[in-house]
Amino acid sequence: MEQYKIDEYNHQHINDHQRKFNFVAEYVAQLDDVLQKLQAFNIAIPSWALGTGGTRFGRFSGGGEPRTLEEKISDVGTIHALNRSSNSISLHIPWDIPENATAIKAHAAQYGLHFDAVNSNTFQDQKDAKLSYKFGSLHHTDKAVRDQAIQHNIDVIKYGVELGSNALSVWLSDGSNFPGQLNFRKAFQNTLDSLQQIYAALPDDWKVWIEYKPFEPNFYSTTIGDWGQSHLLASKLGKKALTLVDLGHHLPNTNIEQIVSLLLMEQKLAGFHFNDSKYGDDDLTVGSINPYQLFLIFNELVEGMDARGLNHATGIGWMIDASHNVKDPIEDLIQSVEAIKIAYAQALLVDTKALVEAQQSNDVAKAQEILQAAYRTDVRPLLAEARLRAGGALNPIALYRELGVRDTLIKQRGAKTVATGL
Amino acid sequence: MEQYKIDEYNHQHINDHQRKFNFVAEYVAQLDDVLQKLQAFNIAIPSWALGTGGTRFGRFSGGGEPRTLEEKISDVGTIHALNRSSNSISLHIPWDIPENATAIKAHAAQYGLHFDAVNSNTFQDQKDAKLSYKFGSLHHTDKAVRDQAIQHNIDVIKYGVELGSNALSVWLSDGSNFPGQLNFRKAFQNTLDSLQQIYAALPDDWKVWIEYKPFEPNFYSTTIGDWGQSHLLASKLGKKALTLVDLGHHLPNTNIEQIVSLLLMEQKLAGFHFNDSKYGDDDLTVGSINPYQLFLIFNELVEGMDARGLNHATGIGWMIDASHNVKDPIEDLIQSVEAIKIAYAQALLVDTKALVEAQQSNDVAKAQEILQAAYRTDVRPLLAEARLRAGGALNPIALYRELGVRDTLIKQRGAKTVATGL
Amino acid sequence: MEQYKIDEYNHQHINDHQRKFNFVAEYVAQLDDVLQKLQAFNIAIPSWALGTGGTRFGRFSGGGEPRTLEEKISDVGTIHALNRSSNSISLHIPWDIPENATAIKAHAAQYGLHFDAVNSNTFQDQKDAKLSYKFGSLHHTDKAVRDQAIQHNIDVIKYGVELGSNALSVWLSDGSNFPGQLNFRKAFQNTLDSLQQIYAALPDDWKVWIEYKPFEPNFYSTTIGDWGQSHLLASKLGKKALTLVDLGHHLPNTNIEQIVSLLLMEQKLAGFHFNDSKYGDDDLTVGSINPYQLFLIFNELVEGMDARGLNHATGIGWMIDASHNVKDPIEDLIQSVEAIKIAYAQALLVDTKALVEAQQSNDVAKAQEILQAAYRTDVRPLLAEARLRAGGALNPIALYRELGVRDTLIKQRGAKTVATGL
Amino acid sequence: MEQYKIDEYNHQHINDHQRKFNFVAEYVAQLDDVLQKLQAFNIAIPSWALGTGGTRFGRFSGGGEPRTLEEKISDVGTIHALNRSSNSISLHIPWDIPENATAIKAHAAQYGLHFDAVNSNTFQDQKDAKLSYKFGSLHHTDKAVRDQAIQHNIDVIKYGVELGSNALSVWLSDGSNFPGQLNFRKAFQNTLDSLQQIYAALPDDWKVWIEYKPFEPNFYSTTIGDWGQSHLLASKLGKKALTLVDLGHHLPNTNIEQIVSLLLMEQKLAGFHFNDSKYGDDDLTVGSINPYQLFLIFNELVEGMDARGLNHATGIGWMIDASHNVKDPIEDLIQSVEAIKIAYAQALLVDTKALVEAQQSNDVAKAQEILQAAYRTDVRPLLAEARLRAGGALNPIALYRELGVRDTLIKQRGAKTVATGL
Repeated sequence: MEQYKIDEYNHQHINDHQRKFNFVAEYVAQLDDVLQKLQAFNIAIPSWALGTGGTRFGRFSGGGEPRTLEEKISDVGTIHALNRSSNSISLHIPWDIPENATAIKAHAAQYGLHFDAVNSNTFQDQKDAKLSYKFGSLHHTDKAVRDQAIQHNIDVIKYGVELGSNALSVWLSDGSNFPGQLNFRKAFQNTLDSLQQIYAALPDDWKVWIEYKPFEPNFYSTTIGDWGQSHLLASKLGKKALTLVDLGHHLPNTNIEQIVSLLLMEQKLAGFHFNDSKYGDDDLTVGSINPYQLFLIFNELVEGMDARGLNHATGIGWMIDASHNVKDPIEDLIQSVEAIKIAYAQALLVDTKALVEAQQSNDVAKAQEILQAAYRTDVRPLLAEARLRAGGALNPIALYRELGVRDTLIKQRGAKTVATGL
Repeated sequence: MEQYKIDEYNHQHINDHQRKFNFVAEYVAQLDDVLQKLQAFNIAIPSWALGTGGTRFGRFSGGGEPRTLEEKISDVGTIHALNRSSNSISLHIPWDIPENATAIKAHAAQYGLHFDAVNSNTFQDQKDAKLSYKFGSLHHTDKAVRDQAIQHNIDVIKYGVELGSNALSVWLSDGSNFPGQLNFRKAFQNTLDSLQQIYAALPDDWKVWIEYKPFEPNFYSTTIGDWGQSHLLASKLGKKALTLVDLGHHLPNTNIEQIVSLLLMEQKLAGFHFNDSKYGDDDLTVGSINPYQLFLIFNELVEGMDARGLNHATGIGWMIDASHNVKDPIEDLIQSVEAIKIAYAQALLVDTKALVEAQQSNDVAKAQEILQAAYRTDVRPLLAEARLRAGGALNPIALYRELGVRDTLIKQRGAKTVATGL
Repeated sequence: MEQYKIDEYNHQHINDHQRKFNFVAEYVAQLDDVLQKLQAFNIAIPSWALGTGGTRFGRFSGGGEPRTLEEKISDVGTIHALNRSSNSISLHIPWDIPENATAIKAHAAQYGLHFDAVNSNTFQDQKDAKLSYKFGSLHHTDKAVRDQAIQHNIDVIKYGVELGSNALSVWLSDGSNFPGQLNFRKAFQNTLDSLQQIYAALPDDWKVWIEYKPFEPNFYSTTIGDWGQSHLLASKLGKKALTLVDLGHHLPNTNIEQIVSLLLMEQKLAGFHFNDSKYGDDDLTVGSINPYQLFLIFNELVEGMDARGLNHATGIGWMIDASHNVKDPIEDLIQSVEAIKIAYAQALLVDTKALVEAQQSNDVAKAQEILQAAYRTDVRPLLAEARLRAGGALNPIALYRELGVRDTLIKQRGAKTVATGL
Repeated sequence: MEQYKIDEYNHQHINDHQRKFNFVAEYVAQLDDVLQKLQAFNIAIPSWALGTGGTRFGRFSGGGEPRTLEEKISDVGTIHALNRSSNSISLHIPWDIPENATAIKAHAAQYGLHFDAVNSNTFQDQKDAKLSYKFGSLHHTDKAVRDQAIQHNIDVIKYGVELGSNALSVWLSDGSNFPGQLNFRKAFQNTLDSLQQIYAALPDDWKVWIEYKPFEPNFYSTTIGDWGQSHLLASKLGKKALTLVDLGHHLPNTNIEQIVSLLLMEQKLAGFHFNDSKYGDDDLTVGSINPYQLFLIFNELVEGMDARGLNHATGIGWMIDASHNVKDPIEDLIQSVEAIKIAYAQALLVDTKALVEAQQSNDVAKAQEILQAAYRTDVRPLLAEARLRAGGALNPIALYRELGVRDTLIKQRGAKTVATGL
C-alpha cells in the first residue's frame, strides 16, 4: 500500500472530515489525550485470519487468499497501512511456522509490524505426529501424549523468542463428549502438571496466557471451561500465568464485563481475543452483534487499567480472533478493528467523575445516562483524525475498495487459493 | 453377522435374562402388546453415521470405516442383526449416491434392510457444481442458484424412487452471519417458492420433511430457524409437507416435547432426527445427556399418536442423526437405538388412565409420580426379550465386542479409512 | 407540567441544540420526512409502570408513587408534556379499573392522552373471585374456570369500549411447572376455544393481541410459549387476532428481528411490549442492555411496514412494558421512550436503496457498513428537534430533575405509597 | 405421625417389597454397605419450604400451611417419620426466629430433628430496619448499610449457636440491574471486607457457606455471580469459608458436575441447595426435570468424597431449596428427598474400578455403558429397604395420602393460612 494513495484519498475527503471532527472535538474534554491514546492503541492480527474460515459443514474460500506466511504478513501490512492500528501479527504454530525468523522479522518490519503472542495448537493431529490428540493433549490420561503436547508448546516458545514475541497463548480443546469419559479432577491435575512444565520453560520476560471455553469441539465438558478454572490454574502456576478472555467463549447471557473487571483487580487479565457472537463461539466480526457489550467491556478496561496505572496500549494483550466465511477477510478485519476502537473511544469519553458520584449515591438512572451519553456519541471522526495523524486512511474500507486491492490479490495469487487455518 | 453366533450368545445368557424378564414382566399390564410394539419399532440409520464425524477443529478417524455405500449398508446390517431394530438406512446425497439402485436394493435386502427417507445436501459445494451455495441455496437471491438447488432435490427424489423410499428430507443451512446480510422476508419467500417447485415433483405417495435449526453453520439467522417457520412453510405447501424435529436443533431450554405434541395435533409432525446435546447441535449419542427429556418426548408421541390412531412404528419417521468422533460408530449407534427404545418402552408403561385423571384434577404431585414410576422402571429386560423373539442379541454391544467385529473391519478395510460425511 | 417551564428550559439550551441539530441535519437525506415521522411516533405507557415493580424476593418502593388511576394518568401527562411521545395510556384490569369512564377520559384528555389497548389479568386471583387461577385460566381443565376467565376478558373489552380503546391485549401465564401436569394438546385446544369466545365478543373495529412467553411464572411449559404457538392461535381465530411481541419473552439468543419480519409478512404482527433483558423477562429499561438489537428490530419494522404501506405511527401497537425497581419510574419511562425513538430514527436513516443492492449481490461487508453507518450516527439532536417542534423539552430527563418533580410528588403523595401492579 | 401407622402400612406391603428388594439385591455388590449409607444419608429441610412459594406474578396458597416455627418443625417431623431421611431443619432468619432456643430444640428433638445451617437474609427490608437493602447489603456503597447487614449475619450466628447449628449460609442478592450502576471491583471488595468481619465472628467449629447465583433478583450483574467469584472470596477468607452450590443458580447449559468435582478437589465445597430447573432459578422439585444430571452430580460427589475419605452423610451439607406453588409442600419435599436418594443410590452402584479402567484407556462407549448401567437400575427397592430398617414407610407419599394428613392439617390450621417465606 503506497503511502501516496492514502494521502491522495485523505486529501480528497479532508474537508468533510474536518467539519465532522471539529464538531465532535468541541465536546471532548481532553482531546489531545484521547487522540494520543487512540493513536497508540493497536490490535494484533492473527495469522490465520487472513484466509476464509469455515464450519464443519463446509468452507467457502474467497479469492486471493495468502498462500504463505509472507503473504499473510503482507495482508496485515495492508490493513495496518490503512488503519495504523494493527502493528503486530500473532502466529499460530504449526499453521504458520517461521522457518527463517530473521527473514520473517525483516519482512514484517517493512510493514512496520512486529510479532505478538505465539499460539500453540494441540487440538489437531499434525501429519508427522507420533501420538494423537483425539482424547486431548495437556490433560491426557497418557503421559506420552502430554509430553508430546508439552514439547510442542516449548517449541512454540522457541519460535516466539526468535521472533521477538513475549507471550505464549494456550487454548486447549481438551474435554469430553460424554458423561463418564473423564475424571474431571485428574484431567485438571494433569493439565496443571503439564502447564507447570511449560511455565518452567518460559523466558523471564514472558507470559503464558490461558484461554478458557465452555464447549466445542467437546460437547459435554471442557477441561478449562470457564474463567474460574483458568484463574485457578493461573493462580497455581504463578505470576507469569494469566487468563485470556475470548469474547465468544462464554455460556449464554454471561456478564463478561464483570469477569474482566475482576481479573483486572486480581492482576490476572492477560488480554483479549476479540470477536462477536450470538449463539456460541461464532467468531463473527467484532461489534457486529452487540456493540454495547463491547463498549461496556472497554468501560471496565479503561476504569480498571487506570486504577492500576496500566498503559492502555501495552498493559494487556489485544488480538482479534474472528472467522468470516462470507466476507473478504481484510475487510472483515478492518471492520473489527474499527469497532474495537469505537468502543475504546466511547469508553474514553465517559465522564468518570460523575459516574463515580452516581454510583456512590446509587443514582442508577444517572449512571445509565452517563454511559449512554458516551456511547451515543458519534466518535468516528475522532478515529479518523487519529488515523490521519498517524498516516492512515480517513476511511480504510472505502479506500481498500476504491483501490481494488482484492482484485489485485486474486490476480497475483489466484481465485482458488486456500490459506492455512480453520 | 452369522445368526448362530447370536444364538450361541443368547443361549449362554438366557437364564440371567429370564430371571430379569420374569421379574419385570409381572408389573407390565399389557405385556404382549408392549413386546409386539417393541419388536415392531425400528429406527433408520443414516448412511453418514457409520464413519467418524468431526468438528471444524479437526476430525479424528477411527479404523475400519466403510469406504463405500456397500460397506455402509453392511455395517447397518451388523447393527440390525444384533438389535433387530434398525431395518432401514437413510441415504444422504451426494455423499452416498446409489449408482445402481437395483444392486444396492438387493444388497440391502440381504441384511433385511430397506431405504428410508433420502436427504438432499445444498449446504456444501460439490466438485462439479456450477454455482456456489456460499450464500445459501433455496433462499438465494440469485434464481440460478435456487434452480440448481431445486434440481438437486428433484434428482434426490429420483434416487429415492428407485430405492423404494417415500420421503425427501430437506435440511437447509441457508441463513446469514451478519445483520443486514439478508432480507428475512424475501429469503422466506424464495425458500417457499423453491420448495413449491420441489413439492410439485413429489410422487403421489411421497412426503417432504422440512427440518429447522436455529443456528450453525450460519450464526446470525437461519431461514428455517424454528418449528414455527418450518410449520408455516409446511402449511403453505400442502398436506405432503411436514415438519421434521431434530432434537439438537433448538435454542437453550426449549420445551421440545410441547412442540412435538402440537405438531402431532396439527398433523404436521414428519418425524425425528434423534441425538442428544448439551449446548447446541452437538450430535451426541441419543440419551447420553438427558434421557428423561427423551422419555417425555416419547410420552407425548405415544399419547398423541394413540389419540390420532397412528401406528407407532410407521406413523411418523424415526431416524438417528448423531455424530461421534470419540466412539466406534457402530457401538454408538447401538447405544442410541437402545436409548430410544428404553424411552419408548417406558412411555408405553405410563398409566395413561391415571394420568388423565390426575391432569383433569390438577393433582400435580400425582401426575409426576405416574410419569416417574414408568421412567424409574428398569425396562432393559423388556427390550432384550423383544430382541430375543426377533432373533437379535440379548446384549448387542457386549456381543459386538466379544466377537471383535471392529478388529475384523480394520483388517478388511484398513486403519486409516475415512468415510464420506461430516 | 406547565408549558412555560418547558419553554424556558428550551430557550436556555437552544443555541447548543441548534449547533448539534444543524450538524447532523446536513447528513439526513429526507430531513422533513424524518422529523415528521419522529413527531408522529408515540409509545403508550402502561398504567402499572408508574409504580416501582418488584421481584419475588422483595419490592422496594420509591416515594411519591401514584395512589390512584388519576395520579397515574397525571404521571403519564408529565412524561408526555416533556417528551411529546407518550400520548396514550394502556390500562391493566383489574389493577386500574376506570369506574367512571367519562370522567377518566376527560381527565386524560387534559394531558392530551387517550387510551391504548386494555390488558386483562387472569394470572392472579382477585379478592372476590369465585374460582382460582392457580392452575391456569383460558387453558384450564375445568370449564367453570375458563368461563370465569372468558367473562373477565369480555368485561375488559367493555371497559375498553367506554374508554375509546380498540384492542384487547391478552397475556396468559397458563402453563405447567412439572412434566405430566398438563396435556399440551388439550391445553392448547381449551385456550383456542376460550379465545374464540372472547373473539366473538370483540367489536367490529377491535383487535385481540395474543402475547407469548416461554417461561415464568410457570417453569416447565407455557401454553402460549413462543411466536409459533401464538401465530397458530391467531391464524385459527381470524383476521382480528394478531401476535404481540414482548422483547423479554424469548429463549436465550432468539433472533427476534426475524420473527418480527415474518409476522409483518404474514400480516399478523399486533405490536410490541418494549423492554430490555439480559437473562429472561427482566423488564429492564428499553435499550439499556442491547440497543443494537433494538435498532435491528426497528430496521425490520421500517422495511416491513413500508413494504406493506403501513403508517409507522399507527400501523401496529407500541407500548412499554418494563419494571424498574431501582429507578424513579418516570425517569425510567423517559429513558425507555428515548431509546425507542433513537432506534427508530437510526432505522429511518438506513440507506435502503444501497442495502437492497448489497443484499442482492451478497455484499455482506457492505450491508454491515450501511446498517452501522446509520446506527453510529448520533441522532439525539433529531429527537430533540422533533420534541422542540411539538412543544416538548429538549432534554426531558434533565428538565424533570431540574424542576424537582419527584420531590413535589413525594410531598403530595407521601414517601411510602405503593402503586397497584407487580 | 404415630409409628404404628407406619408399621401397619409396611406390614400390608411387605411381601411386594420383599420380592422387589430380593430381585435387585442380588445385583448389588456390597449390599450392606449400600444400605447403611442410604440409611445414614439425610437431607435438611429449610423452614421456608413448608409453605407454598410464589412468583412475582402471584402466590397461590394451599391449605393447612404452618403458621409458626413449631408447626414447621412438626411438618418436617412428619416427613422424617415417613422417610427417615430428613433429620434436620435449616432456619431462615428472620422468617423464622427461634425466640426460645431451648424450647425449640426440645420441640425438634421430639421428632428426632436437629438444626442444620442457619440462613441470613439481607435481600428484603425488615419492618424495623433503619436502612434499606434496595441497593444491596454486604456490597453496598454505604458503610452504614454494610454494617447493618454484617450485624444481622452475626445475629444469625448467635441464633445458630443456641440451636446447635454449626454453619452460616449466606446468599446475597446484591448486584445491579443496569450497566453503570455498580463498580464491580469495589462491590467485590466491599463484599470481601464485610464477609471478613462476619468470618471473624464465626465460632471455631463453624463454617460460612457462600452461595453464588448469576441473576435474579438483579438482572444485569450479581456480585457473587458464579462459582469462580464465590471461590475467590472463600479463598481470601480462609479455611472456614466454602462455596455452596444451588443447582438452580447457573447459566443455561452449565456443567455443574464439573464444578462440583473441582470444588471438592480444592476442599472448598460447602454443600448443596437441591432443586431442579429448566430455565433459571425455577426452584422445582429435585429430579423433576433432569434426573440424569442429578445422578452425574452424585457420581462426582461419591468419587470425590471417597478420594478425600469424607463421610458421605456428614462430609458436606445437604439441603433442599425448592419452592412449589402447585403442590402440597410436604408431598413435594418427600418427592425431592426420594429423587436425591435415588441418584445417590445409583451413584453407589457405579462400577468404579471398571470406570477408572475405561477412562484410563479412553474407552468412551464403555464408560457410558458403566454409568448408564447404574442409572438404569431400579433402585427404589433399596431405598424402601433402607427406610424399612430405619422405621420409615415403604412408600412415604402413598401413606401420607392414605392417612389424609393434609386434610387434618387444614382442619387444624385452616384453609387460608400463609406461611412465612417467599
